Amino acid sequence: MKKIKVAILGATGFTGEKLVELLFLHPYVEIVYLFSRTQKKVSYSQIFPRFLKKVDLKCEPLDLGKAIKKCEVFFLSLPHTVSMQYVPFLLKNNKKVIDLSADYRLKNPRLYKNYYKTIHKDKKNLKKAVYGLSELFKDEIKNTQLVANPGCYATTMILALYPLLKEGVIENYVYVDAKSSITGAGRKPHLEYHYSNISNNLWAYKPFLHQHIPEVLEALKTKTKIDVHISFVPHVVGIEAGIYSTFYLKLKGKVDLDVIYKKYYENCPFIRIKKFLPHLKDVIGTNFCDLGFSLDKSKKQAVVICCIDNLIKGAAGSAIQNLNIMHGLKETEGLL
Amino acid sequence: MKKIKVAILGATGFTGEKLVELLFLHPYVEIVYLFSRTQKKVSYSQIFPRFLKKVDLKCEPLDLGKAIKKCEVFFLSLPHTVSMQYVPFLLKNNKKVIDLSADYRLKNPRLYKNYYKTIHKDKKNLKKAVYGLSELFKDEIKNTQLVANPGCYATTMILALYPLLKEGVIENYVYVDAKSSITGAGRKPHLEYHYSNISNNLWAYKPFLHQHIPEVLEALKTKTKIDVHISFVPHVVGIEAGIYSTFYLKLKGKVDLDVIYKKYYENCPFIRIKKFLPHLKDVIGTNFCDLGFSLDKSKKQAVVICCIDNLIKGAAGSAIQNLNIMHGLKETEGLL
Amino acid sequence: MKKIKVAILGATGFTGEKLVELLFLHPYVEIVYLFSRTQKKVSYSQIFPRFLKKVDLKCEPLDLGKAIKKCEVFFLSLPHTVSMQYVPFLLKNNKKVIDLSADYRLKNPRLYKNYYKTIHKDKKNLKKAVYGLSELFKDEIKNTQLVANPGCYATTMILALYPLLKEGVIENYVYVDAKSSITGAGRKPHLEYHYSNISNNLWAYKPFLHQHIPEVLEALKTKTKIDVHISFVPHVVGIEAGIYSTFYLKLKGKVDLDVIYKKYYENCPFIRIKKFLPHLKDVIGTNFCDLGFSLDKSKKQAVVICCIDNLIKGAAGSAIQNLNIMHGLKETEGLL
Amino acid sequence: MKKIKVAILGATGFTGEKLVELLFLHPYVEIVYLFSRTQKKVSYSQIFPRFLKKVDLKCEPLDLGKAIKKCEVFFLSLPHTVSMQYVPFLLKNNKKVIDLSADYRLKNPRLYKNYYKTIHKDKKNLKKAVYGLSELFKDEIKNTQLVANPGCYATTMILALYPLLKEGVIENYVYVDAKSSITGAGRKPHLEYHYSNISNNLWAYKPFLHQHIPEVLEALKTKTKIDVHISFVPHVVGIEAGIYSTFYLKLKGKVDLDVIYKKYYENCPFIRIKKFLPHLKDVIGTNFCDLGFSLDKSKKQAVVICCIDNLIKGAAGSAIQNLNIMHGLKETEGLL
Repeated sequence: MKKIKVAILGATGFTGEKLVELLFLHPYVEIVYLFSRTQKKVSYSQIFPRFLKKVDLKCEPLDLGKAIKKCEVFFLSLPHTVSMQYVPFLLKNNKKVIDLSADYRLKNPRLYKNYYKTIHKDKKNLKKAVYGLSELFKDEIKNTQLVANPGCYATTMILALYPLLKEGVIENYVYVDAKSSITGAGRKPHLEYHYSNISNNLWAYKPFLHQHIPEVLEALKTKTKIDVHISFVPHVVGIEAGIYSTFYLKLKGKVDLDVIYKKYYENCPFIRIKKFLPHLKDVIGTNFCDLGFSLDKSKKQAVVICCIDNLIKGAAGSAIQNLNIMHGLKETEGLL
Repeated sequence: MKKIKVAILGATGFTGEKLVELLFLHPYVEIVYLFSRTQKKVSYSQIFPRFLKKVDLKCEPLDLGKAIKKCEVFFLSLPHTVSMQYVPFLLKNNKKVIDLSADYRLKNPRLYKNYYKTIHKDKKNLKKAVYGLSELFKDEIKNTQLVANPGCYATTMILALYPLLKEGVIENYVYVDAKSSITGAGRKPHLEYHYSNISNNLWAYKPFLHQHIPEVLEALKTKTKIDVHISFVPHVVGIEAGIYSTFYLKLKGKVDLDVIYKKYYENCPFIRIKKFLPHLKDVIGTNFCDLGFSLDKSKKQAVVICCIDNLIKGAAGSAIQNLNIMHGLKETEGLL
Repeated sequence: MKKIKVAILGATGFTGEKLVELLFLHPYVEIVYLFSRTQKKVSYSQIFPRFLKKVDLKCEPLDLGKAIKKCEVFFLSLPHTVSMQYVPFLLKNNKKVIDLSADYRLKNPRLYKNYYKTIHKDKKNLKKAVYGLSELFKDEIKNTQLVANPGCYATTMILALYPLLKEGVIENYVYVDAKSSITGAGRKPHLEYHYSNISNNLWAYKPFLHQHIPEVLEALKTKTKIDVHISFVPHVVGIEAGIYSTFYLKLKGKVDLDVIYKKYYENCPFIRIKKFLPHLKDVIGTNFCDLGFSLDKSKKQAVVICCIDNLIKGAAGSAIQNLNIMHGLKETEGLL
Repeated sequence: MKKIKVAILGATGFTGEKLVELLFLHPYVEIVYLFSRTQKKVSYSQIFPRFLKKVDLKCEPLDLGKAIKKCEVFFLSLPHTVSMQYVPFLLKNNKKVIDLSADYRLKNPRLYKNYYKTIHKDKKNLKKAVYGLSELFKDEIKNTQLVANPGCYATTMILALYPLLKEGVIENYVYVDAKSSITGAGRKPHLEYHYSNISNNLWAYKPFLHQHIPEVLEALKTKTKIDVHISFVPHVVGIEAGIYSTFYLKLKGKVDLDVIYKKYYENCPFIRIKKFLPHLKDVIGTNFCDLGFSLDKSKKQAVVICCIDNLIKGAAGSAIQNLNIMHGLKETEGLL
């Protein structure tokens, strides 16, 4: 099979770096360009010496005119508000775009403004965008030109809640307590991210306000017609990778969660329904999403766990899964 | 002032070691005996070389007959079911006992059997025992011979919930998501506690079943007459110390949490009501309990945070605070 | 190409687990049996849930009679003194053996007795064994039936020293200060390996006495005819993976280390000669060995750094590299 | 006793923060001013919430005119080249200065220029300065107005080497391999210090070039008349605190290191001569310096270990030890 030629915009962030690492191992992908908005043209392995003798590519300032001549797929690993500067040009040139920023996730541009504090500049293409949670939107992803890759927290929330809402077995007021590695905040020289502030530390932030909530609500509404209320408090934990989300759910009646989750996910290669509550470390370095659950004595209250590697299933891995779907490849290609 | 002579039973566990570290700095305490059920007589600094040139004591096999001749106060840092073997003898000999095990925390021996899987062997003294959460039971602690020091998770739960229940401002169905260091599980040579299994890992355990729940319910009932329902899921996190508990609470009306918490705790030297959500690291190595909170947009849903050092405010520090109270000392003596 | 059928003995240790993880990705290998001396027959993913939906194999008690009917290559990831119980049987049955224990590394059985405190029970096969440091013994590995895979520390020492000794540019008295993850000590339920004892800790052990020294001396003597003296002090560091060895070397004259290392290693796919002193993290999760160096102002004193992932290039990865060599495959097959 | 009134310049760096933490517990010290060059006047516990309900002080922009009216002792926890801007004024006003920067450590201003890349601006006071390694320069410290507090690496090097050089039992060419927490580099918002770059990482830097070498050579020369040659390679390790220095030494004859170290240090309250090689964690959070050693079989080669908490015995603790000495207090006051 001919290799798919791809470019990565934003190749020096945590997600961009993970994309390079994973795409390099993909048997049907050729990385042609690595772009960075902050770097001069330089060997990629000079920026990240761990790629020496492995990835023999330059990282260079953005030049889309050049890139559209050679590349078919563009991964945008850019901060929100930046992606939408490039997407119109790429779509006009008939390129496929997998955008890992938040710019095309929300159908409603007012919500975008509320949460991202800026007016959306490419409303036209918002409609074209497919929300890239592979397990739920596979058919739509197959045929789109523009994938809006989901947020990392959002991935855990939608995957945990969707089957239960769809089956109508939980009250629609849910609590989510999520714990994440600081890598989710991006690679920035901030004092707050200093080793001595993160190591052995743990804190809650943005209570009820996190910008991933609206995309969860939109996706769940689209797929279940239900308006769910989510009380969501994310936490930073001093761990290197991963998100571990704990859901507190009221059940409407006697429910067998195992049966329901298996009904929806048994054939999903990256979702594992566990017999015991998952350990975060079991998904680190993988594209797996582990689901576990337990009921209280009354059988009316459930705790559900959903955990992922935030940079893989929560970003780069999921983006590649979408690439596979868009190109009719096996969903696990390059990811297992 | 004459020094209070104390013995520590179980001086080689995490809590026992922390007791030694803290009591050594206490200006009005003299540690006379360090007992261990597993060690031959040996210099304590041989077991824990960090105490060399600092703590010049032997650790020796238990000999209560000898100890009651010299000591006035006994700290029992023993596994549950073990403390109750020694407490009757100590009380009979008019000693003061601060028991850090779970053996005397529950007034109801049936609950003890349910959660600790063994029949209580000293029901008589159960009634004498005072639940040693200093901030709530100060008056009772002052006059008791037997303090049942609270569990670490329980400490965070009671301190966070008590003022809100007492004021009647929250619904009595609450969710608690707690994150703890593995040291809470004790010093044991278990494969699960191996560095490579804990570092960068995170998992939920004992969902809805943790043995600290009944003592929370009892303490809150005693002080507020309210039966609260707690959905509690504890988590192990790969951090060296601390417990960080996140509470999801429904408010009954317009409530100013800051005013309420200050009303109850402003004069408590170890409770800090924070303007922002607390960082766990700020309490590590201290006897402080940090409280923070935030409301959602509707003002009907609150998140409350309560965090402590699990081995200090959650065990050894709290025990010393109780010692201070029992002896009419300043509550902070040796702890600040 | 037909897949090579392999069995792994000792599949539940750190090295055995890593072998499974890596061999599973190898395009020309089929894992047929996973044996453990301590487990009943059970699904491997039940022991290590991270392999669920990925490795669908049982782990079972050792049954070599059964295994020799189906398997061609045997990886022995066993404690020293245990491997030599099985190797004679396997060799007699014309199987290929890659032994990751220390049992066949030393040609001289007296040294074995000195360092491993037991008499060698299979001296006959000692002669057949080839020391499996791929970069130095490639030709011998190609044609052997029995590979003695090198120790992790030894790997860094030989790779750093060999070119310099061979070229005669360093004095033959060298200092090696190595820092290693605790995983090198194996997966054991020891109190010393408890998270709280390893995290943020660091200590030197077995000064001048480590059992990897004699294999280094033997290998270097074989390849350079030089008797080198090594003052070696290993350290445990609270990190999850890796060995970082620092060498202090006296140069005999004006020497260009870059030229020498490139002469020997430029074509070795897993050795990278760095422009700057290496960072350990750049080799973690890979089979790379990073080499860096610097001279002092006098140009007579050099520091050389050699670092690897102790469980990959220091054990499982190196074993697979040897498998590739033995079967005429590309050396990097399954490893890049 | 009347409390000694002190000011801290640079109260928001790692060392300044540690000074506040320790001096707050000192029974004979009153912190009067906390100065920061980068902060507006603000409550110190607003910058560091862990000091809430504990340290009730403002941190404010530098105002020495004000400070000299109230304070007797000035701790300068400033970057090198900054301290020497303030020291002349303070000395002129008859204040005592304990400078934790490098500005007054080197008697030879040419060395200062070589290592710190700037011309020394206060050569006059260089002569007055006493090198503040308490154990070696106690008599000089007693009577000085200006203490140049030693570097953290330097502290380990001088303490380990001094007795052996003084007794003439080691060759004067020594190798030192040191491992340090990143906190030694100061609190800066640098991408290199990001949690994800430090955690589980380890690397050597500034080989043979570190700026602490000249102060070691000067101090040892002063006290032993010997010119020693030190091949020193420092390493950053992903740990929260501490320095662990490993020394490779050639012995001149039969030597009992235990006897020698005890001769020099038995009465030093903060130096512990260990029977076994020290564990770093045993000194963390303390002002102790742990020394251990071992000989090889030939008894001609020794390894010596010297470890400290880099921010305590390597900085703030040592500064307070010097304060105690300068004021005729017990050396351990406020430190044990």
